[in-house]
Amino acid sequence: MNQYNALQAHFDKIYDFQHLGAICGWDEAAMMPAGGGESRARAMSTLGVLIHEMVTDDKVPDLLVGAAAEALDPWQRANLREISRAVVSASAVPSSIVEKLGLATSRCEQAWRLHRAENNWSAMEPLLQAVVDITRERAQILADAFGCSPYDALLDEYEPGVTSAMVDRVFADLKGFLPEFAAQVINQQAAEPVLPLTGDFSIDKQKALGVEVMTALGFDFDHGRLDISHHPFCGGVPDDVRITTRYNTGNFVESLMGVIHETGHAMYEQGLPADWRRQPVGEALSSGTHESQSLLMEMQAGRTREFLQFLAPRAQRIFLGHESNDPAWSVDNLHRLYTRVERSHIRVDADEVTYPLHVILRYELEKDLIAGTLKVKDIPDAWDAKMSEYLDISTAGNFTDGCLQDVHWPAGLFGYFPTYTLGAMTAAQLFAAATREVKDLHGGISRGDFSQLLAWLRDKVHGQGKFLSFDELMLGATGETLDAKHFKQHLTQRYQQRI
Amino acid sequence: MNQYNALQAHFDKIYDFQHLGAICGWDEAAMMPAGGGESRARAMSTLGVLIHEMVTDDKVPDLLVGAAAEALDPWQRANLREISRAVVSASAVPSSIVEKLGLATSRCEQAWRLHRAENNWSAMEPLLQAVVDITRERAQILADAFGCSPYDALLDEYEPGVTSAMVDRVFADLKGFLPEFAAQVINQQAAEPVLPLTGDFSIDKQKALGVEVMTALGFDFDHGRLDISHHPFCGGVPDDVRITTRYNTGNFVESLMGVIHETGHAMYEQGLPADWRRQPVGEALSSGTHESQSLLMEMQAGRTREFLQFLAPRAQRIFLGHESNDPAWSVDNLHRLYTRVERSHIRVDADEVTYPLHVILRYELEKDLIAGTLKVKDIPDAWDAKMSEYLDISTAGNFTDGCLQDVHWPAGLFGYFPTYTLGAMTAAQLFAAATREVKDLHGGISRGDFSQLLAWLRDKVHGQGKFLSFDELMLGATGETLDAKHFKQHLTQRYQQRI
Repeated sequence: MNQYNALQAHFDKIYDFQHLGAICGWDEAAMMPAGGGESRARAMSTLGVLIHEMVTDDKVPDLLVGAAAEALDPWQRANLREISRAVVSASAVPSSIVEKLGLATSRCEQAWRLHRAENNWSAMEPLLQAVVDITRERAQILADAFGCSPYDALLDEYEPGVTSAMVDRVFADLKGFLPEFAAQVINQQAAEPVLPLTGDFSIDKQKALGVEVMTALGFDFDHGRLDISHHPFCGGVPDDVRITTRYNTGNFVESLMGVIHETGHAMYEQGLPADWRRQPVGEALSSGTHESQSLLMEMQAGRTREFLQFLAPRAQRIFLGHESNDPAWSVDNLHRLYTRVERSHIRVDADEVTYPLHVILRYELEKDLIAGTLKVKDIPDAWDAKMSEYLDISTAGNFTDGCLQDVHWPAGLFGYFPTYTLGAMTAAQLFAAATREVKDLHGGISRGDFSQLLAWLRDKVHGQGKFLSFDELMLGATGETLDAKHFKQHLTQRYQQRI
Repeated sequence: MNQYNALQAHFDKIYDFQHLGAICGWDEAAMMPAGGGESRARAMSTLGVLIHEMVTDDKVPDLLVGAAAEALDPWQRANLREISRAVVSASAVPSSIVEKLGLATSRCEQAWRLHRAENNWSAMEPLLQAVVDITRERAQILADAFGCSPYDALLDEYEPGVTSAMVDRVFADLKGFLPEFAAQVINQQAAEPVLPLTGDFSIDKQKALGVEVMTALGFDFDHGRLDISHHPFCGGVPDDVRITTRYNTGNFVESLMGVIHETGHAMYEQGLPADWRRQPVGEALSSGTHESQSLLMEMQAGRTREFLQFLAPRAQRIFLGHESNDPAWSVDNLHRLYTRVERSHIRVDADEVTYPLHVILRYELEKDLIAGTLKVKDIPDAWDAKMSEYLDISTAGNFTDGCLQDVHWPAGLFGYFPTYTLGAMTAAQLFAAATREVKDLHGGISRGDFSQLLAWLRDKVHGQGKFLSFDELMLGATGETLDAKHFKQHLTQRYQQRI
């Protein structure tokens, strides 16, 4: 295994540099003063070039060929597959295109901050056009390298092995169900007012509750931290996971669920296979699988009546100073609050019922953009038409809360949006399986004991790294490949129980 | 200037990697959970190897030769000199010795934590012997490369251009003065009791005062932060300087002076020449010069009656909630507190009068160790003899508070100790010059206005980077090379005014 070992040693080093980049990336978002930005950007760019040079090093293709002929165990074989994927992907696109795209997205993203605030579509259009043009060029090159359609080549970067045919199928299922279902739920909930919560929601207290909940979920503070950043995220490395949140001192509700969401991401990272820490096969499987772990905690477990039974007295003690019979702080009211459904313009503020419709809209548009059947200039009209159809909301002339609301396209992230809803469906299917297989799952949740659920996820998902394909993972964990029915059943059960 | 430019581009990249290492090093001390340590150590070690490989890259010596023949301006010429120094120093020692020393110091340092606590010299002796043996081997190789004595080669790593002959001269001057002077001061101070301070010294309040003082001194929070770590330090990069402190909630006095000390270091970093950010000539001149900047703020400016006039009402408002006539909080009592002289076992707790005696003791012993005229086994006796002679303190049998108190030797830092006292003397000489040249320096300090002092330091010290030699820098800033008389005058003036 000389060649395989040499390859592994090379990727160990690459991982070490990625580690430093991940910590400095977290630092940039959570710690760095603004004046450090320029110098940091240069350092990070130099690091990026080094990592790209190491992945595409001349010696690597020969080692790959040599290693493939050696006697490898199944994990080594899978690791070789993942190394090969990374190398092909990094080598396929000429650096001239990488540079052009970097420049175009950097310009477009910076302009977006300004033009979104100004509701200025016409200034954004040419900048976004440039990003789409170069992205299509890049997608075509990747499509040729991997033998698939251009959009599938982009999707594959976030969801290896998942095709748009598969996404079309599950999204069609949801599209036939959600608009009508959302209308029913909203109609019913109109008769169920939510009582407002008041208390001392200072940052220290919110953080104390966040840490208590993270500990219950199973976050390992010996291998991670909770801090503050403008946009919450999960960063760092598996041995040292850094999650962030932001606090609104008028309201603890959003930050807490944000913390639970990022904790779901973090526990996936902390549970990745320890024996494969520095190798590609030891990484998380995909963006959608990652999102499934955050949504499993936030949406599946975290909004159950059982979890709120655990949460309510703790939140009362922290924010009111004592347990309380105030109806606003009851499990019933908290549950109403945490399962409120509303049609809204903004994806990131959407609830679990309407969220997939925001995603499907974006998925359909970006697929057409990459195929060339939708022109950039026609995005606003197409957006408005789909928002009207799916959510009964008009965005005509309102670019700020319409097609300019997300940073993804200006940043060149095409193929990413569907992973949010793949994650939501995966979460529902995994949670349904866990409910069958884990003894007294909901009883445990009501006591804040997530240990059995976490053990099951460690076994079925976290500890698998990239060893299995997504289909294999879902078959192993749930007995079937991804099916939207579990997500629909989850919604029906949660929202029609109440109706 | 093709060759020079290629060299500069190469060292730009090296700097970028040093930047990432500096931020991750700060993170390790101030942020990282313990469980992240193993993974981080591997990543930092991989980074260290990369930087060493880049500095000693085969192409560099040819570029150095080529660049030397090109038309360069004086700063470029100085940069070439510094690059050359770095390359010779990194190339001289075979990696087998670097590795052996790394292993020996890592073992010795880890064992030191345990054996110091247990007062166990006999367990430490063989481990320290190994470190000394390899250090002597390494020093001989450097001595051959630079054409100097082995100890001077080690000293030169921290104090370029400074020789032990020069240190001997200034230390002899101090040694003839300090023991007797300290005895007088201690004798006089016995009649001046210090009133104890009480108040709410919670961490938030201490930090608020620290930030207020840092701002007055001129620390730029757009390019730096203040955090907490077990051992206070100044880290990060010039565009983003990270200083740390630790808080004792029973007492604000030490932490505050610690913050002022690190702020002095930080302002040196923030003031390094902006045009030379990523090049060796843009770095701080030496360890002693760095220490001079921290001591200039902490010992020279920070313990003046004028500074305490600025500090007292602010400290009262923060810790008592209001200004106060309590004699414990008077400028007089604070001044007594901040200029207390005591003979003590421990260097890091020593005041400015006795501190140099701790340093001279270590300097004399380590010079003999490297020369081979002192054996490791004889360190405890030699230590005890010098402590008795210089400070009238016996350390017989007390290794914990004697020869095992510092991490420096176990960590392989030989040649570093003298820089503390070189720094103290440099600070006194610079502050005396600033007092002559800066209009109303002491008036400004009493109003918390350090801007004129900082402007003078920026001009004479910070902005020079490594452009000048230490002698040139001192000549330019003070009109003479380093002379112990300024430090002696400072002590006489401060302590005999009171006597």
